[in-house]
Amino acid sequence: MDGLLTSETDTLVASDVPAGDALHRLAALLATDLAATNAAIVARMASEVELIPHLAAHLIAAGGKRLRPLLTLASARLCGYRGERHVQLAACVEFIHTATLLHDDVVDESDLRRGLASANAVFGNKASVLVGDFLFARAFELMVADGSLDVLRILSNASATIAEGEVLQLSTQNDLRTDIPRYFKVIEGKTAALFAAACEVGAVVAGRDAAACAALSSYGTALGMAFQLVDDALDYAADQAELGKTVGDDFREGKLTYPVLIAFAAGDAQEREFWRRTIEGGEQTDVDLSTALRLIERHDAIGQTIVRAQNFARDAKHALASFPDDPVRGLMMEAADYAVFRRH
Amino acid sequence: MDGLLTSETDTLVASDVPAGDALHRLAALLATDLAATNAAIVARMASEVELIPHLAAHLIAAGGKRLRPLLTLASARLCGYRGERHVQLAACVEFIHTATLLHDDVVDESDLRRGLASANAVFGNKASVLVGDFLFARAFELMVADGSLDVLRILSNASATIAEGEVLQLSTQNDLRTDIPRYFKVIEGKTAALFAAACEVGAVVAGRDAAACAALSSYGTALGMAFQLVDDALDYAADQAELGKTVGDDFREGKLTYPVLIAFAAGDAQEREFWRRTIEGGEQTDVDLSTALRLIERHDAIGQTIVRAQNFARDAKHALASFPDDPVRGLMMEAADYAVFRRH
Repeated sequence: MDGLLTSETDTLVASDVPAGDALHRLAALLATDLAATNAAIVARMASEVELIPHLAAHLIAAGGKRLRPLLTLASARLCGYRGERHVQLAACVEFIHTATLLHDDVVDESDLRRGLASANAVFGNKASVLVGDFLFARAFELMVADGSLDVLRILSNASATIAEGEVLQLSTQNDLRTDIPRYFKVIEGKTAALFAAACEVGAVVAGRDAAACAALSSYGTALGMAFQLVDDALDYAADQAELGKTVGDDFREGKLTYPVLIAFAAGDAQEREFWRRTIEGGEQTDVDLSTALRLIERHDAIGQTIVRAQNFARDAKHALASFPDDPVRGLMMEAADYAVFRRH
Repeated sequence: MDGLLTSETDTLVASDVPAGDALHRLAALLATDLAATNAAIVARMASEVELIPHLAAHLIAAGGKRLRPLLTLASARLCGYRGERHVQLAACVEFIHTATLLHDDVVDESDLRRGLASANAVFGNKASVLVGDFLFARAFELMVADGSLDVLRILSNASATIAEGEVLQLSTQNDLRTDIPRYFKVIEGKTAALFAAACEVGAVVAGRDAAACAALSSYGTALGMAFQLVDDALDYAADQAELGKTVGDDFREGKLTYPVLIAFAAGDAQEREFWRRTIEGGEQTDVDLSTALRLIERHDAIGQTIVRAQNFARDAKHALASFPDDPVRGLMMEAADYAVFRRH
C-alpha cells in the first residue's frame, strides 16, 4: 500500500494486512460453488436473439471478480447452508450487477471496462441499454423460479436503491455543494446496496433468522462502502497507470468523490477555484489531472479516504462476530481488509 | 379510416366499425379503478432523489393512454374479481411500460413522445436510462408486495421477452433481409408480450384457472399485434401530420416494419434499390419520404397491413368467447376493432 497510504494510516492498519488476496482464497475455498455459478451465468444468458449471448460473451471474456456472487455463496455457506439454491441466486446477483455496469458505461460514456473495450464501445449504446434490460429481467425470472418472496423482496429493493443512487450521483455530478452525507448516500445506493443484498440472500436461503440476515446485510453494506471508497481513492492513485487501469476517469467525468470533497473542503481560495473550473465547469487542460493529484496529496485526501474505508472494514468484521469462527468467516473478514489494501 | 383503408379492406370490415372510442368507454366503465391506479402510479413514483419524481411528473404530464393498466383492470373485472390487488398490479404494468418507453427513446434518439418533448430530450439520455431502471425495479417491488409468484413469473417473463424483442429489432434495423416471421417476432416481443401479461395478470388475481389465464393471454397477444401493426401503418399515413403525430419516424430510423416489407417484396428492381439506399444505407434526402409513401400506396402496403391487423383483432375477440357476455367483455371486444380503426 506504499503508493496509497500515509504514515498515519500505515500505523493504524499494519497489523491487519492480509498475507494474500482474501478474495482469491475465498474463491478457492468455494471453487465448486463458484464453478457452478459461472456455468449458471453462461447458461442463463442464452437467448435465441443472437446479439444477447454475443454481447454477453464479450462481458464474460472481460472477466470480472465475481465478487458479488461470491458474497452470496460465502454467506450461504457461513450460515450452514448445504443445498444448491444459492448457485442460481448468485447468478441473479451477477446479472443485476452486469446490467448496472452496462447501463453505467452508457451513462458514463466509458470506452474501457476492466481494461478491455466496454460493451457500449463495441456494440453501441443501444445494445448496451437493451441487453442490460434483458439481464435485469432474466435475474427476476431466475428469482421467481427459486420461489422465495424474501429473496425477491431483498433484490428488488436493492435494484431500486441502486437506481436511486445512480440518479443521485448524476444529480450531484459537477456540483461541489455536494456534502459528505450526500456522497455516502450515493455510494450506499450505487455500490453497497447490492453487496448487502448479495450477503443477506445467503442467510435467507439458509433459513436463518432476522438477526443473522441483518448481520450479513450490515457486513455487505460496510464492505461495499469500503470497496467504493478505495475505488474512488484508486482513481487518483498515480501509480495505477502501470496496472493498466485508467487514472483520472472520475476527474474527467466531474464526479464528486471522497478525495475531491476532502481536497476541496481543505483547499484555499485558489485551489477551490481550480476545482470549480475543472469539476463544476468541466474545463480541463492536459496539466489539470497532475494538479488535481498534487492537491489531493497536499491535503492527504487519499489517506483520509483510506481511513474512512478502514472504519467501514472494521464495521464489516464486527458484523460477523456472532457467526462461528470457521474458514469462511475468516476469509470474509480478510476480504474486508483486502477491500482496503488492494491495488486495483 | 378513409385515409388508411383500401376499398378491399373497407368491404371486409365495414360492419365492425365501432360507434365510438372503445378504450374511452372502457376507461369510463372502470373509472374508479383507473383513478385508483393513477393515484398508485403517482404515489409509487415517489423517491427522495428529486430527479426521479421530477422526470416522472414529466411523463405523467405527457399522459398516455394507460392502455396496458386498463387491460389489467378490465381483465380482472371480466374474471369477476371484486378486490383491490389489480390496482397495484395495473400500476406495475404501467411502470414496466414506462421504463421501456424511456429506454426506447434513448435507443431511438427520439425528441418527441406523444407530441411533447421526450424525457431524454429534456433530461438527457443518462437520466432516462437510470429512471427507467428505477421504475422497472419499483415495479418488481410492488409485485413482491402483492406476493403472487404467478404474477411475478408472468411479468418477469414478459420483461425478458420485451427486451429480447427490442434487441431483435435493433439487430434487424436497416436489414432488408428481415422476413415477415422475424418481424412478427419483433412486435410480439416489444409490444404484444406486455399486452398479454397485462391481461393474464387480471385472471390470476381473480384466481381463475389456467384456461381463463391462457384465453386472456391470447386476447392480449392478438390485441398487441393488431395495435403494433396499425402503429406501423400510421407511421406511413400521410394524413397523420394534422393530428400532431410525426410521420416517417420509422422510415428515418430505418425500421423494418410491415408496410416496408410488403412494398419491398412487391417492388421492382428500381424500387428495391430505393429501399436499399434509404433503409439499409440510411441515405435519405428531403423527397425520399414522399417517394416511400408513394411506393407504399402503389403496392397497397397499408391496406395489407390493416388486413393483418384485422385478423389479429378477430383472434382477440375469439379469445374472449368463453367469458360471459357483459359490458366489460363487450368493450374489450370493441377495443380490438378500435385497435384497427383508430387514427392515432
